[in-house]
Amino acid sequence: MTLSPTLQLAHELIARPSVTPDDQGCQQLLAERLAALDFRIEAMPRDGVTNLWARRGDQAPLFCFAGHTDVVPPGPLEQWDSPPFAPTIRDGLLYGRGAADMKGSIAAFVCALEAFVAHHPDHRGSIALLITSDEEGPATAGTVEVMRRLDARGEHIDYALVGEPSSSQQLGDTIKNGRRGSISGFLKVRGKQGHVAYPALARNPFHESARALADLAAETWDQGNDHFPPTSLQIANLNMGTGAENVVPGELAAQFNLRFSTELDAATIKRRVTAILDAGGFDYALDWRLSGEPFLTPSGALVEAARAAIAEHCGITTELSTAGGTSDGRFIAPSGAQVVELGPRNATIHQINECVGVDELDQLSDVYAGILERLLGNAA
Amino acid sequence: MTLSPTLQLAHELIARPSVTPDDQGCQQLLAERLAALDFRIEAMPRDGVTNLWARRGDQAPLFCFAGHTDVVPPGPLEQWDSPPFAPTIRDGLLYGRGAADMKGSIAAFVCALEAFVAHHPDHRGSIALLITSDEEGPATAGTVEVMRRLDARGEHIDYALVGEPSSSQQLGDTIKNGRRGSISGFLKVRGKQGHVAYPALARNPFHESARALADLAAETWDQGNDHFPPTSLQIANLNMGTGAENVVPGELAAQFNLRFSTELDAATIKRRVTAILDAGGFDYALDWRLSGEPFLTPSGALVEAARAAIAEHCGITTELSTAGGTSDGRFIAPSGAQVVELGPRNATIHQINECVGVDELDQLSDVYAGILERLLGNAA
Repeated sequence: MTLSPTLQLAHELIARPSVTPDDQGCQQLLAERLAALDFRIEAMPRDGVTNLWARRGDQAPLFCFAGHTDVVPPGPLEQWDSPPFAPTIRDGLLYGRGAADMKGSIAAFVCALEAFVAHHPDHRGSIALLITSDEEGPATAGTVEVMRRLDARGEHIDYALVGEPSSSQQLGDTIKNGRRGSISGFLKVRGKQGHVAYPALARNPFHESARALADLAAETWDQGNDHFPPTSLQIANLNMGTGAENVVPGELAAQFNLRFSTELDAATIKRRVTAILDAGGFDYALDWRLSGEPFLTPSGALVEAARAAIAEHCGITTELSTAGGTSDGRFIAPSGAQVVELGPRNATIHQINECVGVDELDQLSDVYAGILERLLGNAA
Repeated sequence: MTLSPTLQLAHELIARPSVTPDDQGCQQLLAERLAALDFRIEAMPRDGVTNLWARRGDQAPLFCFAGHTDVVPPGPLEQWDSPPFAPTIRDGLLYGRGAADMKGSIAAFVCALEAFVAHHPDHRGSIALLITSDEEGPATAGTVEVMRRLDARGEHIDYALVGEPSSSQQLGDTIKNGRRGSISGFLKVRGKQGHVAYPALARNPFHESARALADLAAETWDQGNDHFPPTSLQIANLNMGTGAENVVPGELAAQFNLRFSTELDAATIKRRVTAILDAGGFDYALDWRLSGEPFLTPSGALVEAARAAIAEHCGITTELSTAGGTSDGRFIAPSGAQVVELGPRNATIHQINECVGVDELDQLSDVYAGILERLLGNAA
């Protein structure tokens, strides 16, 4: 059986067991293919993470395919119908860890580039590939690091297409044009332990903070907008007490999370939460963990090119969505780039027997090439 | 060495290892002594608890000594300087489990009665002894049971003297003329579990109940009165969350306790708490456990007799107090009886090397006899 170029490259990538952050030579494989297309290759390793930045051309606009070569661990091997790192085609599906998330997309990137450059050796603007081996892990030394270096030398991405599996029932039915932000707060309220029979000698941390906590839970953060639901704060954990029924506890611990729209940013949230707590006049400590600011690419050349390419190659009208979890798009969007996520169906990602359609990958390669055509092709 | 009658009886009682609810024959010993004084003896056992009701005379007013023969466990035997159930006198102190709480008081009851009856064989009114072996335990089959039987047959106590160790620095410096009430509430707020990213599909039990819980913590229950501090509610335990940072929990559990003055009663508290929670409009379940209603004997013949007897035999002015934990007085006071607690110093109760002063016990017997003298003696 002869494999298409996209399937062939997907096979080669899946065969490398590149569990985060170990790239296992995947990026070297990509670099060789891209160098043959006159891409300039830069390795940007950091803290054991392998990162690749490859660019063809010097002019604006700069279009960038972004993705990751690392995969999540396969889980119990005996539950796989074929070994997770031995790519196998059965019934029109390519099985293997990373088939959908997202070695299939990376193979489609490369093959789309090869096809596009063959037709447009002197395309407009520039094309780049941003690939990391640290998307499924801490995500602190990967895309973040590459963006930091680009910013330091004034290199600016105009259009970023992240190859995350965005599709639901059918390739191209959904593209992600933004994500909510996510931030968690870790609160400790300090009181003074004592006996319930002698309340004057104790300070109950819940009694002192109850009004503020209720205000926090009741706050209207924003009204959302056309692309995002209203921002929501949820207190997920709240604990106080030793179990003893006659002891006033000395401390209360709470953890809360906000999923927030583009109407807000982390700094504003911190300021508003702190103001609510400070109004209570009690003794507390508050730590924050920001998972990502929200981003949105409401319309523009990238979204329109993606819509049109999907309509041409998949025959369907795509939907824009900002639902779901995070992706490395959150690290690219703050630079001002237009960002969309477009990839295969996501039903099996991170699961046993992860797979992608054989036809789906070839079609995806065509869609990617179609987007390049619309954004950087020499029209006349 | 010759022991006084009070010391001798205290020895005999302490030698019986009567850990709750096992009386070990203590009450039989008392019954024999009291029968010799023409007391009518009634055993009122229930659920493995030994209870004694002994009465001399049929007329009102009825004066009653109340106490318990059971003791708390001795704890690690090797930490005692002499065995806990081998009463030992060292340096003017009688050591042994129950010496202060409250076999010493019971010995003083009996010897005071013997002295009083010898002088006043035809005293006014009646004298009784109410003794249980279930004060340190669940306290559900002891004094409660005896009071239930007395009430059923219309037998009414006018004055109850509970022999609990009320003294602080010196015998008689403090008598307890009341106690706060104590009641606990166990609250469960039911929400609906879900993902923090999809708040519309979940109901956060803290968010729903936060305002009501804050109201509960902030409520002014009363202003207290001359004898009691203001009533206090303390939330002692509050727990919600799985530990996971992205899960909206399905349930919140809280436990709170009120120590309440005679301005309130349990029924009023339940009604007011329920009204506050109901105003929140959320789904909850609430269970209650009442440890005791508050009681107060602000003044009257019993308090005055105790003050005068202490002044005579101890040479000090006593202080009235309603502080501290609960005693079986809470079960007697609701009948309308005047109730005071008067006994030896309480510094060592429930501890290793529990002890009472040798002189203290003889003095206590004199004080008890002096109270009987004042209330039931034939003045002329």
